[in-house]
Amino acid sequence: MHSKFIVIEGLEGAGKTSAIAVLVETLRRRGITDVVFTREPGGTPLAEALRRLIKDGIDNEVVTDKAELLMLYAARAQLVENVIKPALARGAWVIGDRHDLSSQAYQGGGRGIDPDLLTALRDLVLGDFRPDLTLYLDLPPVIGLRRARARGELDRIEQESLAFFERTRARYQALAAADDSIMTVDAGRPLAQVSEALRARLDGWLDALEPQL
Amino acid sequence: MHSKFIVIEGLEGAGKTSAIAVLVETLRRRGITDVVFTREPGGTPLAEALRRLIKDGIDNEVVTDKAELLMLYAARAQLVENVIKPALARGAWVIGDRHDLSSQAYQGGGRGIDPDLLTALRDLVLGDFRPDLTLYLDLPPVIGLRRARARGELDRIEQESLAFFERTRARYQALAAADDSIMTVDAGRPLAQVSEALRARLDGWLDALEPQL
Repeated sequence: MHSKFIVIEGLEGAGKTSAIAVLVETLRRRGITDVVFTREPGGTPLAEALRRLIKDGIDNEVVTDKAELLMLYAARAQLVENVIKPALARGAWVIGDRHDLSSQAYQGGGRGIDPDLLTALRDLVLGDFRPDLTLYLDLPPVIGLRRARARGELDRIEQESLAFFERTRARYQALAAADDSIMTVDAGRPLAQVSEALRARLDGWLDALEPQL
Repeated sequence: MHSKFIVIEGLEGAGKTSAIAVLVETLRRRGITDVVFTREPGGTPLAEALRRLIKDGIDNEVVTDKAELLMLYAARAQLVENVIKPALARGAWVIGDRHDLSSQAYQGGGRGIDPDLLTALRDLVLGDFRPDLTLYLDLPPVIGLRRARARGELDRIEQESLAFFERTRARYQALAAADDSIMTVDAGRPLAQVSEALRARLDGWLDALEPQL
């Protein structure tokens, strides 16, 4: 089977880490073991340096919405060119903890940046490169934030208001509804049920790919 | 007189530092002493952190042209919003050591990034914010590079080939010819002549502004 780029998306506390474990296990059962993991923003030395600037800022300087957006895309440009495309080219599968959809949802929905501008920037940076499949873990922000807070200190973005995350979720939902390559999974249920739903969605998608074998 | 944003542009070794001294002296003779200096990329804590990543890279990772461009604009967004606009708003004049024209010339001419894409990105990040006056110091790259090399170690961008700087210069010249707010000064002459030419151009421009007083 040709290598694929699969992305997990969702709000803080949606269960992305557990979901990635389910993906890995599901792929392994099918003999797919050459898997590269990425997280965004980050995943290369330069992209990780940008991640720190995005997450923590520096010297209490206000990070403008535009600078945040441009740093996210600078990190993404590095990751796609230096890691994801080379991995896919050598036949590895790539599992991404967030990708472009996060920017569309957080910066477009949460921050209120013009969506036309966001898609223009995406096309500029990524051309027609897109994930083969995105699994979006949908849940009410109040539940996700409770989980994220339980994990410890919150970064600059995680400290946003509940309204910010409500807008982000609404944008995720709208984008998922409009794009066949994005599957929505109800992540507000108990973990075992979420994992089972993810496994079923991924297995169904992989089964449909089999003719390519 | 309303505060103005004046930018010095040109290749490495064109004499931007000396030119800034001439600008300051010329403004001071007219009683304009509240002057803020900026350099790009840089000028805020976050923008300076980005400058280091742009200039030096990190861990020998290849910096893609797109990531370089996006980091430049992230730094510019910070500088314009957090430094330049507030300075102009309180009545200070701003003298910039490089600004957007550098990206148009280096990334557009030198790196060969699509100019339409560059102007789209500029409009996206800066809206209609532009310098009031840009003084472009024009000289053959071979002369500028000789001067820059005499100053010491070269950074990642200064190590580009002569052809890169020839393309950058050609783009500078074309953009200056098409924009009335950009004045070209022949910087290949002895310093005293360049300074005198700069002084004359700036005085002429300031005289034309006087009716606004």
